[in-house]
Amino acid sequence: MATQVIVLNGGSSSGKSGIARCLQAVLPDPWLALGTDVLVEAMPAAMRSSEGGIELAPDGEVTVGPEFRSLEAAWIDGVAAMARSGARIVVDEVFLGGSESQRRWRQALDGLRVLWVGVRCEAAVAAGRETARGDRVPGMAARQAELVHRGVHYDLEVDTTRTESLECARIIAARIIAARVG
Amino acid sequence: MATQVIVLNGGSSSGKSGIARCLQAVLPDPWLALGTDVLVEAMPAAMRSSEGGIELAPDGEVTVGPEFRSLEAAWIDGVAAMARSGARIVVDEVFLGGSESQRRWRQALDGLRVLWVGVRCEAAVAAGRETARGDRVPGMAARQAELVHRGVHYDLEVDTTRTESLECARIIAARIIAARVG
Amino acid sequence: MATQVIVLNGGSSSGKSGIARCLQAVLPDPWLALGTDVLVEAMPAAMRSSEGGIELAPDGEVTVGPEFRSLEAAWIDGVAAMARSGARIVVDEVFLGGSESQRRWRQALDGLRVLWVGVRCEAAVAAGRETARGDRVPGMAARQAELVHRGVHYDLEVDTTRTESLECARIIAARIIAARVG
Amino acid sequence: MATQVIVLNGGSSSGKSGIARCLQAVLPDPWLALGTDVLVEAMPAAMRSSEGGIELAPDGEVTVGPEFRSLEAAWIDGVAAMARSGARIVVDEVFLGGSESQRRWRQALDGLRVLWVGVRCEAAVAAGRETARGDRVPGMAARQAELVHRGVHYDLEVDTTRTESLECARIIAARIIAARVG
Repeated sequence: MATQVIVLNGGSSSGKSGIARCLQAVLPDPWLALGTDVLVEAMPAAMRSSEGGIELAPDGEVTVGPEFRSLEAAWIDGVAAMARSGARIVVDEVFLGGSESQRRWRQALDGLRVLWVGVRCEAAVAAGRETARGDRVPGMAARQAELVHRGVHYDLEVDTTRTESLECARIIAARIIAARVG
Repeated sequence: MATQVIVLNGGSSSGKSGIARCLQAVLPDPWLALGTDVLVEAMPAAMRSSEGGIELAPDGEVTVGPEFRSLEAAWIDGVAAMARSGARIVVDEVFLGGSESQRRWRQALDGLRVLWVGVRCEAAVAAGRETARGDRVPGMAARQAELVHRGVHYDLEVDTTRTESLECARIIAARIIAARVG
Repeated sequence: MATQVIVLNGGSSSGKSGIARCLQAVLPDPWLALGTDVLVEAMPAAMRSSEGGIELAPDGEVTVGPEFRSLEAAWIDGVAAMARSGARIVVDEVFLGGSESQRRWRQALDGLRVLWVGVRCEAAVAAGRETARGDRVPGMAARQAELVHRGVHYDLEVDTTRTESLECARIIAARIIAARVG
Repeated sequence: MATQVIVLNGGSSSGKSGIARCLQAVLPDPWLALGTDVLVEAMPAAMRSSEGGIELAPDGEVTVGPEFRSLEAAWIDGVAAMARSGARIVVDEVFLGGSESQRRWRQALDGLRVLWVGVRCEAAVAAGRETARGDRVPGMAARQAELVHRGVHYDLEVDTTRTESLECARIIAARIIAARVG
């Protein structure tokens, strides 16, 4: 049966967005790519640096408050509704709360066919890519590399440390296509 | 009763996004700002210039195909679901199909308290702002200035030709706050 | 005689960049648009928030250190050299030091035909546009509105408070074309 | 003696910009990073898709016209002048004309201590990264992978196919530091 949602979970600068765009290029049908970055961008500018919203410490630690959580819960429900209305969706996520974050998504996506994908990248390599991007608070990549995978269960894991985004996307796509045929 | 969704409809470079950001700044609660640009950005890169997706003629004419319409329909359902789950949402839209576009949104938003806002801007002024932005296909602003309002019904209209975005946002916010109290 | 450099000086969110892009659209020859933003973007990420580089206080105050000044001096010389080599250049600047900033540019541009243009915008309006942009530290626009013009001498002043960028560009372009003919 | 300019030459999506940002992070002094992208962005919007300016064919072929060449020549002189005025500069370039492009830069940089660095990446890998970025015309990466190196002489070559940007930057930085001491 056809997969309806692909959830990519990984730390900052692990390569999720690149894999999402490659998935859109290699999968036969059109898929929407939505993720934490889109949600954060949709929030009021003031919430992007506030106590109730998102706090970004100088060392790259990210803390989110109750106002963020509340908008996020509605966002997750909405993404699930898009999938129920027929859109195929690649969700590009950072499970700051590990298994608890997965639980929230799992509950909202109930009844949908979901492929859970862990996107791993060695902390040192992710940190180097963060430097190469130059537009992120230094420290996020290293901090999140392990953290976001704690207690999370996957159908499939890819590792961008030594594998290109396009190759990772092909591995995921092969699983999607096999599921459809199988 | 409290408004749950504000729909801003206007042509390209009419100032919708600026008003949306100002609304987020002046309204007392946190609102999400989502719009056509976010949807287009979430689509596969290949669809952003294809027959089934979005076609942008050199003169600024925008045509959308069946694959776009299909993803858009699911997107609209999802945005409605976010509002039903408690998120306040400013929708920043370009009703290329005029009244028919409004009908699609109205149907999806059924049961929610919606404020329909027309964002007008004289074609020549919008075209000048398009030049000042420098990142849009020239011609879209002038083409869409009237087109997107055809047959559309509003609760409120603002005109950015001679009124600043922040002032327009304050007019809209006053209506929202009055509705809550009234 | 033909103008070789147009220096636009104004506070943050006063509309300089929009005028620069409109000038590129309305002037008959191709002009390069270069400005403080380009210089800041070219600097090491670490200098964009450091003592020797640029410090941005939460209230929008901008302070620059000796390392910034040193790279900036070389940048100004380079922009002048581009003009001497035949490129027409619109410089989009924020004279944080008022007349002292102008003196630095004037010295580097010595021997070139320069049009000095003041880009004014009432503080409250510039602050509103800063909110509408949503990507700047709030407070910069209001703070810089008067500050950057202190002791600066202009050939021409435009005011974006109630005049569109394109119209301001046309006023400047008319002066450029008159100078060429005259 | 201390290197004054590092010229990174490589095809689209070969990783030059990432290496430039990493160089800024690992080198002890502040370096400016300037490149073709900055020049193109500074040009009039109309030139970014015109006969005299830049033409981008649907298959990723880039052709530049006489107006582009003329502004580029002045730009190169200006970058050289910045280095002569004391700024250390990383130039991030795409030598579409191979050895002829290098000749132009070599002439302008005459008398300065320059490190010429070739940034290689296998065409298939660069094409995959182009897909992962999603914001470039597909085809440029593969087309330029070999082309830009034709007849070009380097002091040092790095290959991002299997080496991270940060690691490449460290190799280059080691050479810079050795030159200073030596």
